Amino acid sequence: MTDLVINNAVVVTSDAKGSVIDKGGVAVENGRIRQIGPADEIAPVAAHAAKVVDGSGHILMPGIVNTHCHAADSLFRGLVENLPLEPWLQTVWQAEGAILNPDTSRLGSVLGFAELLLSGVTSVMDMFWYPFETVAAARQVGLRVSTGGIFFDPAGVTALSIDERVAEARRFFDEFAQAEDVFAASMPHGAYTVSPENLKAAWAVSHECGGLFCTHCAETRAEQLDIQTRYGRSVVRHLDQLGCLDERTVLAHCVHLDEEELDIVARTGAHVAHNPMSNMKLASGFARVPEMLDRGINVSLGTDGPLSGNDLDMWMTLRLAATMHKGFTGRADLISTRQAFDMLTINGAKALGAEDRIGSLEVGKLADMVLVDVKRPHAVPMFDPMTHLVYSTNKSDVRHVFLGGEQVVRNGELTRMSLDDTLATVEDMVPKIAATIA
Amino acid sequence: MTDLVINNAVVVTSDAKGSVIDKGGVAVENGRIRQIGPADEIAPVAAHAAKVVDGSGHILMPGIVNTHCHAADSLFRGLVENLPLEPWLQTVWQAEGAILNPDTSRLGSVLGFAELLLSGVTSVMDMFWYPFETVAAARQVGLRVSTGGIFFDPAGVTALSIDERVAEARRFFDEFAQAEDVFAASMPHGAYTVSPENLKAAWAVSHECGGLFCTHCAETRAEQLDIQTRYGRSVVRHLDQLGCLDERTVLAHCVHLDEEELDIVARTGAHVAHNPMSNMKLASGFARVPEMLDRGINVSLGTDGPLSGNDLDMWMTLRLAATMHKGFTGRADLISTRQAFDMLTINGAKALGAEDRIGSLEVGKLADMVLVDVKRPHAVPMFDPMTHLVYSTNKSDVRHVFLGGEQVVRNGELTRMSLDDTLATVEDMVPKIAATIA
Repeated sequence: MTDLVINNAVVVTSDAKGSVIDKGGVAVENGRIRQIGPADEIAPVAAHAAKVVDGSGHILMPGIVNTHCHAADSLFRGLVENLPLEPWLQTVWQAEGAILNPDTSRLGSVLGFAELLLSGVTSVMDMFWYPFETVAAARQVGLRVSTGGIFFDPAGVTALSIDERVAEARRFFDEFAQAEDVFAASMPHGAYTVSPENLKAAWAVSHECGGLFCTHCAETRAEQLDIQTRYGRSVVRHLDQLGCLDERTVLAHCVHLDEEELDIVARTGAHVAHNPMSNMKLASGFARVPEMLDRGINVSLGTDGPLSGNDLDMWMTLRLAATMHKGFTGRADLISTRQAFDMLTINGAKALGAEDRIGSLEVGKLADMVLVDVKRPHAVPMFDPMTHLVYSTNKSDVRHVFLGGEQVVRNGELTRMSLDDTLATVEDMVPKIAATIA
Repeated sequence: MTDLVINNAVVVTSDAKGSVIDKGGVAVENGRIRQIGPADEIAPVAAHAAKVVDGSGHILMPGIVNTHCHAADSLFRGLVENLPLEPWLQTVWQAEGAILNPDTSRLGSVLGFAELLLSGVTSVMDMFWYPFETVAAARQVGLRVSTGGIFFDPAGVTALSIDERVAEARRFFDEFAQAEDVFAASMPHGAYTVSPENLKAAWAVSHECGGLFCTHCAETRAEQLDIQTRYGRSVVRHLDQLGCLDERTVLAHCVHLDEEELDIVARTGAHVAHNPMSNMKLASGFARVPEMLDRGINVSLGTDGPLSGNDLDMWMTLRLAATMHKGFTGRADLISTRQAFDMLTINGAKALGAEDRIGSLEVGKLADMVLVDVKRPHAVPMFDPMTHLVYSTNKSDVRHVFLGGEQVVRNGELTRMSLDDTLATVEDMVPKIAATIA
């Protein structure tokens, strides 16, 4: 029995060949793609499908993978402006400390995840204080999440001892080891906020449990200087010497790497989550993405938190990733359309160690799919569909989103929940949140 | 008699004080703003108004001014990719030459202007081959336009002699001198495509007729080198020596200016139209906007054409203008929220010599106004309305647009025309357009 057929769309697959089907579709069974092909091959299946969606006038593409986010910080969007990262972080942490608990953290995550899902993001790597609440929020909204125990030496929102943090991380891995919608990770905040010993502890638990390891890395010059001063080596060398880099590692930012650090990242197989909007707004700088790609480093995209955006817009992130390196290097031929689109989709799946399940439209993969309207004035005419997705369409063109074949966004609205209460509750908190930094 | 009242919105005025009214509105009479103030002062007027719009849940802001565009190139969006400006221009001109005539030019202008108006742009400075068609298209869609006779020495789409170009420019000035919806200009393409004599002719006719003068300026390093080689001086110095810079001049791009050129622009009062997306995508570089603002140069924003975008998104332009200079200089405090928002609105009005009529919500000005939905998940919560517009909202949040009090966009749809025929006609042209560069 076929559960779902989407047909008559332009299909942009993100498979290894970058295949595009001018008019085609997919058939879904038990949450996975069973067939993908031209419309006339899919049409006969539609006759026996439980649900049929007409993709005419749309591009069908894989669900977007956002590999760096702090969605619950949506509660604070626009609260702190025009500061560089370090003083900005101090102010953000002050507001977070006063407001966040498991309930408000979940509330913020629901808000942020809703925004992401409505824009076609079906998997997100999210670092936040209460990882179990983060999962609950993701399930409420309807997307996959990579998260897990946070490691952070200063008090922070959750003032746990290192033993407690390890125990929480282990509990998280145990609980979600088998979950198809959770990619469990250890999440030490960064080398400047987590001691070498605690970084190693975070690494150890993630690898005992077969999980991922994600940390901020070389986001600013100040961070590089700080680590150099403290440990006599740069951030990437530091992480490498601690044994914290391999193909299960996701490094967020990597703005300030020297040649040898690029080589180290390439050699170890660690992944880079590139956050162009955050890096510009916080004046962190321009990551050396073209050189990373030249070295075969897997670069995926992230929004970072909504404090450095101030939204969670993977389409703007995509556009920036495709254009800013052209502008910065003076070479218009750098970052091809295909490279940019892969960063949005399959490279994110690779970062999560899940390229066998998500990140492209291929037979056997989970049916995480997005239908993008290409009939609006800013998206007509269309010459090349992938170019179109990278340079013309935007998040408001996302009409329908499917997670494992389940329709989780219909006509631009969530299907699993109404957001009315969430939005009202958040708006009621505005005076209290504003007072935290007054 | 009050024609229109909009009330209960957050009003972001763009006036000289940057005034924001937390809950307020405007009253409109004969196309102009007669009153602006808090909701309780506006409410009594609503009782006698012909039309009342509830602005609850929205920000009311001035219509956006896009000061550099080639809207009709929408016909070619995404056709030519990953080339630097010069070879890219050659290919674009090849496609333009094969496709453009007055009818197709108007068609493309309608498409581009529709996109602009739907995003809240109520005035656009647009340089294209058939200026009378450009005006016709703008009137069909419902926005104000600054355009006029093109000057271009190579054959181009319209192969006119210099005398014919001057005559066309003069005809345009004569026809639209009194029009409230047209800001007439001479439009020499650039110092690298128009001889010194012809630049002076374009200048002469614009100044005899009291109009504007707009040209591309120092967009790429190659252009600077070319002009330096030909004339022994840089582009800005060249224009200055020809007498082509004053407060009625709009210079598009100005990416590659040295200190003295910045000083010249400041001294002459010429305006700079900053096009961050185009400059990144075409690898032109980063304009020195913070230094321009420090010198008191009036910097406004432009999308440039949809070949370098590949859309016409002033909201993304705004976001880039507010963030890219932070990233490029490493200073997060550069480009304040207020500076960015002024670039989007009142600075554009100044560039068009029309700050007495448009660019802000003030009594006596034309009622060009936009209602922006701020209740969607990416826009909740809101702490500071102007920050919100710069960093959180986007073009899809524009719900209603008014031009001189006339509602020209209602719930995200044009009111003066249906776009169905335009979109269908453009889509039918795709094979023919694609063939021009095959």
